[in-house]
Amino acid sequence: MGDVTAQLAAIVGEANLLTGEAISDDYAHDEALSSPPQKPAYVAKPASAEEVAELLKAASTASVPVTARGSGSGLSAAARPLADGLVISFERMNAVLEIDVENHVAVVQPGVTLAELDERAAAAGLTYPVYPGELSATIGGTVGTNAGGMRAVKYGVTRNNVLGLQAVLPTGEIIRTGGRTSKVSTGYDLTQLIVGSEGTLALATEVIVKLHPRLPHGATVLAPFDDLDQVMAVVPKIVASGLAPHILEYIDNMTMAAMVYNEKLELGVPDAIRERSQAYLLVALENSDTGRLGEDVETLGGLLDELGALEVYVLEGGSARKLVEAREKAFWSAKAAGADDVVDVVVPRSAMPVFLAKARELALAAGGGVIGCGHAGDGNVHLAVFCKDPEARTNLLTGVFAYAMELGGAISGEHGLGRTKAKYYLKLEDPAKVELLRRIKSGFDPAGILNPGVLFG
Amino acid sequence: MGDVTAQLAAIVGEANLLTGEAISDDYAHDEALSSPPQKPAYVAKPASAEEVAELLKAASTASVPVTARGSGSGLSAAARPLADGLVISFERMNAVLEIDVENHVAVVQPGVTLAELDERAAAAGLTYPVYPGELSATIGGTVGTNAGGMRAVKYGVTRNNVLGLQAVLPTGEIIRTGGRTSKVSTGYDLTQLIVGSEGTLALATEVIVKLHPRLPHGATVLAPFDDLDQVMAVVPKIVASGLAPHILEYIDNMTMAAMVYNEKLELGVPDAIRERSQAYLLVALENSDTGRLGEDVETLGGLLDELGALEVYVLEGGSARKLVEAREKAFWSAKAAGADDVVDVVVPRSAMPVFLAKARELALAAGGGVIGCGHAGDGNVHLAVFCKDPEARTNLLTGVFAYAMELGGAISGEHGLGRTKAKYYLKLEDPAKVELLRRIKSGFDPAGILNPGVLFG
Repeated sequence: MGDVTAQLAAIVGEANLLTGEAISDDYAHDEALSSPPQKPAYVAKPASAEEVAELLKAASTASVPVTARGSGSGLSAAARPLADGLVISFERMNAVLEIDVENHVAVVQPGVTLAELDERAAAAGLTYPVYPGELSATIGGTVGTNAGGMRAVKYGVTRNNVLGLQAVLPTGEIIRTGGRTSKVSTGYDLTQLIVGSEGTLALATEVIVKLHPRLPHGATVLAPFDDLDQVMAVVPKIVASGLAPHILEYIDNMTMAAMVYNEKLELGVPDAIRERSQAYLLVALENSDTGRLGEDVETLGGLLDELGALEVYVLEGGSARKLVEAREKAFWSAKAAGADDVVDVVVPRSAMPVFLAKARELALAAGGGVIGCGHAGDGNVHLAVFCKDPEARTNLLTGVFAYAMELGGAISGEHGLGRTKAKYYLKLEDPAKVELLRRIKSGFDPAGILNPGVLFG
Repeated sequence: MGDVTAQLAAIVGEANLLTGEAISDDYAHDEALSSPPQKPAYVAKPASAEEVAELLKAASTASVPVTARGSGSGLSAAARPLADGLVISFERMNAVLEIDVENHVAVVQPGVTLAELDERAAAAGLTYPVYPGELSATIGGTVGTNAGGMRAVKYGVTRNNVLGLQAVLPTGEIIRTGGRTSKVSTGYDLTQLIVGSEGTLALATEVIVKLHPRLPHGATVLAPFDDLDQVMAVVPKIVASGLAPHILEYIDNMTMAAMVYNEKLELGVPDAIRERSQAYLLVALENSDTGRLGEDVETLGGLLDELGALEVYVLEGGSARKLVEAREKAFWSAKAAGADDVVDVVVPRSAMPVFLAKARELALAAGGGVIGCGHAGDGNVHLAVFCKDPEARTNLLTGVFAYAMELGGAISGEHGLGRTKAKYYLKLEDPAKVELLRRIKSGFDPAGILNPGVLFG
């Protein structure tokens, strides 16, 4: 170990290598609720792709497992290291290298946060539209989990907005994939293979992302409905309308109550409606033209009215912003409310009503409960799971995930499998597919040093 | 061989297995100009994924190379078989299995043509927006090459519109990837890995594609400019305008002349302007609302005017349709004009002027010429190459591709590498990356039966 320490220190400099007591608790976990923290043996903070390559070569030789880390805001413990492991923290590789206005791309290092990128893009009238609800998340982290968020309904997820990478293979080679172009057809798409691979195939050291024109005018509409089924029935109709909302969220009444309480929201919903409504739809529209925005809000209001909304509230700026922020923080509300786990499941959007009914039924049978909200336009359901007994909870989640897959969905739409959901994946997924993933993994990482335990359990 | 014939016939039925003289010339080639035709030993026409799996198992055992075939409209010879090979033709697997309106997806077999899918989607008010210029192309073929086309500037390429697959591995397992959801984060994205793999990793037997609302109103604008540099400078400004054209093409004057001549177009461009203009910009807008469309056309016209267009023509329906069709057939115009090769190269869109200048310079130095048109919004240049001597042409193309890569682009944006461009790819690409692709290939296809010679030469 002393030998490895010296080697790693020689690569990044002594000041940028932590061991033992110098490693703070922060490096022991991400925000997953169901994975116990674990401090690694080493934390290295490289400053370049070349240093990352040297670190990986040294780890390979010494068989030290490696976990990449951004800001640790993940929800599946993909950034939770192993006891004998090395954390490669990208905190020093945090530069926005270029905002390329002509090609609408940004070139950034993995340690750049979404907040920093947003600030830089905004100055050029552009936006990077991946908003997974945590602006302290790093680009590298979002690449690892293929982060989504509320605006995915219009702009897609990380996968749809990453055009290219510089990445270091666990064998130490530095490669470039994709580029500043939106199309390429020369061999297998390594960019897309690395996006969502949760640090198990290669480590991104530079990311080329697509930027979009920043539309200056927006409006936020909140519509309470009698029940969740009604909300779900409305969603495909709004998608089909062509209004192209950038936010299309459902929030059940328990979650709304927690949000209102925790964030002290003033939404102007009278008590009579609040008591009656079991579920809300939150829709946000944006436009470069205020006139068109106004017309679209009108059209949307008419549509919601027609489809059974109890009322349609066009929220003014301040309360709209607060509500969207509260929705982004729904995870923290759930945590504060004592949720035992928070998972995100994806199903075809038309299957959301049956899925949610079944999830509630399974939770009830397990002596627990599920409440939630989610990216309704994408069929992406976020469930706060209340079920104290770990075994009962595992059974409950197995049932919930199995049903989602039966409906043509998946265990996770955007949080990833990490350490916490790998066991469900291995149990429920077609073994031929898992074997294929393992062979791909071996092709990248023959020594198996990158994030062992993640994805494959 | 008799043994293999009997085995294959037992799988698909005698009527669906062709050998020897029964194999027509059609199966010997696609539309690539620089690959000599080659008849295979066998053509099998399976009716199901199970039959495809049995065919692949038999081919594996007998070491027979396998080439998948849709309608053979590819431009890189990825569908050109080997002499001792088996062509798996998907002509009998040609059903649109479902148009799922609620989820905006279609589930289709690989032999469905784009024209058929378009007809079925249109009946539901939806569209599959991948228009690679050849509506007889099959979905399976477009998945293989990651086909793009004119509308990619708004809707993305095949990759961005394929949500899931049923695919048969060369080892005979039938797997499902992705689904009817627009996001998923559970392990490596096999859908995206198979899309664009040109039949070398797995064969798609079912494809789930994203459908979009079909916007009923459209307008087409043609703007001649003094020279190509001016056109190129205008492109990023139109992209930034937020007008979101679904077609944004440049056409140089030689290509326009060939199109006008071959397709007998009447565009109403007076001789004086025709003689002066070296390049044209073609822009199409669409909207669900005629009023907004009219406003947008006005805005676009003003912008083009301001940016130096010699004139702005809003084409009426018939001539607009004919011009777009002629642009789609530009490959055939180039072929008719005696082009020795037609390639598509992609560069960051801001680099198009320098790239085109260099391509012309290299062609001139090689005693030849290049003309073309392309998807300007995507930086995707289609070059008709006139250079009779094969060696000089290879050198010219090597230079052109190398320069594109130097600019951050790639050898192909949408036609793929196939057999015809594999040699350039192997010469110009980072060997570490090619090695990685080979390891991925081995993970899927340990016996190496799927399309040997394609991608890897």
